Amino acid sequence: MPQPHDQNHDPAPVLVDIVRGVMVESRHRGAFAVVDAAGKVVRRAGAIDRPIYPRSAIKPLQALPLLETGAADKYGLGQEELALACASHHGEPVHVQKVSAWLGRIGLGEGNLECGAHLPTDVPSAQALIRGSQPPSQLHNNCSGKHTGFLCTAACLGEDPKGYIEADHPVMRRVLKAVGEMTGTDMARAPAGRDGCGIPVIAITLQAMAQGMARMADPSGLPDERRAASTRILDAMAAHPLLVDGTGGLAVEVMKVAGDRVRIKPGAEGVFCVSLPKLGLGIALKIEDGAGRASEVAIITLLDRLGCFTADERMALHPFLEPKIKNVAGVEVGLLRPAAAFDF
Amino acid sequence: MPQPHDQNHDPAPVLVDIVRGVMVESRHRGAFAVVDAAGKVVRRAGAIDRPIYPRSAIKPLQALPLLETGAADKYGLGQEELALACASHHGEPVHVQKVSAWLGRIGLGEGNLECGAHLPTDVPSAQALIRGSQPPSQLHNNCSGKHTGFLCTAACLGEDPKGYIEADHPVMRRVLKAVGEMTGTDMARAPAGRDGCGIPVIAITLQAMAQGMARMADPSGLPDERRAASTRILDAMAAHPLLVDGTGGLAVEVMKVAGDRVRIKPGAEGVFCVSLPKLGLGIALKIEDGAGRASEVAIITLLDRLGCFTADERMALHPFLEPKIKNVAGVEVGLLRPAAAFDF
Repeated sequence: MPQPHDQNHDPAPVLVDIVRGVMVESRHRGAFAVVDAAGKVVRRAGAIDRPIYPRSAIKPLQALPLLETGAADKYGLGQEELALACASHHGEPVHVQKVSAWLGRIGLGEGNLECGAHLPTDVPSAQALIRGSQPPSQLHNNCSGKHTGFLCTAACLGEDPKGYIEADHPVMRRVLKAVGEMTGTDMARAPAGRDGCGIPVIAITLQAMAQGMARMADPSGLPDERRAASTRILDAMAAHPLLVDGTGGLAVEVMKVAGDRVRIKPGAEGVFCVSLPKLGLGIALKIEDGAGRASEVAIITLLDRLGCFTADERMALHPFLEPKIKNVAGVEVGLLRPAAAFDF
Repeated sequence: MPQPHDQNHDPAPVLVDIVRGVMVESRHRGAFAVVDAAGKVVRRAGAIDRPIYPRSAIKPLQALPLLETGAADKYGLGQEELALACASHHGEPVHVQKVSAWLGRIGLGEGNLECGAHLPTDVPSAQALIRGSQPPSQLHNNCSGKHTGFLCTAACLGEDPKGYIEADHPVMRRVLKAVGEMTGTDMARAPAGRDGCGIPVIAITLQAMAQGMARMADPSGLPDERRAASTRILDAMAAHPLLVDGTGGLAVEVMKVAGDRVRIKPGAEGVFCVSLPKLGLGIALKIEDGAGRASEVAIITLLDRLGCFTADERMALHPFLEPKIKNVAGVEVGLLRPAAAFDF
């Protein structure tokens, strides 16, 4: 059942202020957990024991069966395909071409995807389709790489791919099992729904989600096969940030400059999950109201406060660390600003 | 100076829940005031004495000088132009053509607008421009009607239109004076910034903003000239809802079915202002985080709870009163739901 209406007794702290002129115009609340592989909470804000839907930020964990079934090795997948399996890509030609080629390698095609079609989130790519009066295909769906990864495990094991997005399909059972093990979550009993791309979305507490990301970052306590899979997935994200995200995206820019330390994945409704291999930490963050603009300011501020960036890297990431608001004519009229929750 | 970081001591109440599957995924907080022309608060939620930027929701008040300078009569403006002066239109051909013709009537053109150019918010209109490789002009700016109204007063009084968006230009001084009088706000001392279209944005408390809208709804206490101007503006909005907003917009649909009772205007960052002539009430509503999806659910729920709609009208407005969330493939995966703040 949906949770009770009134959550006013326990408001999340303000994480990001939207400033216009001399006044705070809007405010974004949220919560985050920074946790090590053993589950120890290093930093936190808000109620980290409350379940959230991790949405696409969980994709690195959902990619584990692609390695653990042997599918990646059977089909000779490289780091590019593994990065795409973790991607919320922007539907640029490079994404579409590589996903399409991968589908061909496993004997399947765009018609086997069950994610639905939407215009690329990359504006020039969307405008190119519109100019050519071409409707978007399922390949343009930001989740098409993840779905191809799912299909790849079915192909590897000779399973009927049809209905692979349903919770009781062997493909999805493997995914849910891996996520449940990594986050210590009882996936059968947790609150659930359906994600934007059709697969089940299972609620996980911020603390448990962060621990799952920490286990990928510091896989020393995991069984051999999972340890290897975790490392290969995170390394692929760092090697091909553009394939995980899209041109100009925060995740791309962060991994371009600090990919050896930070593996970062956004999700819908204001979520970010991060693995920090050098620190052995995981992060999960959720903006209460679901705003992406706030989740970006919050996660990059948190990474900065955790000492993830050098001075040069901070310069390179300046547009994300100190984002401005410009009006239609291009005049700077405001800014997005991290709130006191980050004063540590 | 920007307000202090920590607003956690006084969180706004939750107004709208975003439900996915069996769980509330995201929450939107906010505040609203329902006030009569004398300033008496009829309904409220949250801190209504805190200033907000009303953004485009204040346009009906900003249109007063267009009548009071005599510009509307001098140029023979009809209800269509008055509706466009209050509009955040969607940049559809009908909006662009009528604004362009109006500019021609006052001897000015698109180049005199200082609002900047952006793609139409109406998707088919934006796609038509993209397909034709045509950049948007300032006529497509959702504020082009309001700006033409501003220019019209300068033309009427023989003022140099250049710089009409600046606070010290005679055009803007008249606008700020009218808004200050109607809302009882000291515009020179209130927190201020610059709006998306370049004009000053002045902070006004929700209660004062609602009272300004109530004075338009029940102008019996206003001087003759302002009373007549208020009535003409509100009547024009009701007569031409499509010109105030755009195809499929909530404001259009509400005024189509209940235009004799409800004059409604959205603004950026989650604001709505409403005049209710039959009840003699005004409403101002602001979502704390600025989300438009939440402001729509909140304002239509509030209007419904205030008894503004008949049973038939409720049926017609069903998509706005009980909005669903569909995923990319078109499957219903969630809904937007008013929270307990509306249980009255």
